[in-house]
Amino acid sequence: MKRNFYSSCEWPTEKKSLNRGLRNRLFKFKKEYRWTGIKIEKYKAEGDDFEGIIRQVLVGNRGENLHFHLRYFEISPGGYSSYEYHRHEHVVVCIRGRGRVKLGKRTIDMNFLDTLYIAPGTPHRLYNPYNEPFGFFCIVNAERDRPEKVKI
Amino acid sequence: MKRNFYSSCEWPTEKKSLNRGLRNRLFKFKKEYRWTGIKIEKYKAEGDDFEGIIRQVLVGNRGENLHFHLRYFEISPGGYSSYEYHRHEHVVVCIRGRGRVKLGKRTIDMNFLDTLYIAPGTPHRLYNPYNEPFGFFCIVNAERDRPEKVKI
Repeated sequence: MKRNFYSSCEWPTEKKSLNRGLRNRLFKFKKEYRWTGIKIEKYKAEGDDFEGIIRQVLVGNRGENLHFHLRYFEISPGGYSSYEYHRHEHVVVCIRGRGRVKLGKRTIDMNFLDTLYIAPGTPHRLYNPYNEPFGFFCIVNAERDRPEKVKI
Repeated sequence: MKRNFYSSCEWPTEKKSLNRGLRNRLFKFKKEYRWTGIKIEKYKAEGDDFEGIIRQVLVGNRGENLHFHLRYFEISPGGYSSYEYHRHEHVVVCIRGRGRVKLGKRTIDMNFLDTLYIAPGTPHRLYNPYNEPFGFFCIVNAERDRPEKVKI
């Protein structure tokens, strides 16, 4: 584990028998929807069915016992995520700007703190037809199936 | 399941074989940090070690396959949650006002979108010494142990 990547807001717990060395962590919110100690990543390693979208994984991939991952995605004006479906569910919470979601034959608008549950098997794409960034948390089970692309 | 409790923003998915009747759901954000179709609940069924705190469960307790629950808590000025610890972890995201967290011997401040990972076994209490409501998401594993009170 690379320690120098982390911010200084990290400290041990006091009930050591319970935590297997896990540490409390505070990820301070910064300008432009970044957080201390969190890096900006590609949306996906490869693919050509998305545009203008980045990812930050806040919690869930550092050896925690959590059964979920909290990720932040941001879509630039004109950008969009892959159009796909999978067995696992999404919980999406809009926290920056506004955007739209294509859910099969339906389209919904998302504004600040609107919260969307995407049921298993629903073809979905998030996109940003507006002039400001569209940012949202997406919470998922840690163990989940791989997405399948939807042919349009 | 009481159907009339829900908002109208609910519709079936299209890949029926995958979803066991689960439906997409949009919980629209409303004034005063409420969401369509979500009821305000007591913080806990009983107890006298907390004050001025309410709960809304957005996602996770309606038969979904999710391995987590997304809850929103709000603490009134002067209020506080129980001082407790447990094996399960918390992920806390401040979305309204600001507040403080006692984490064992430490105290941290939380402001908008600051994100806190509370490791297993950490005695913690969230409280609001300010004049505006302090609201935060708290995401937890669906399966989790019962908290133990900390004697002060």
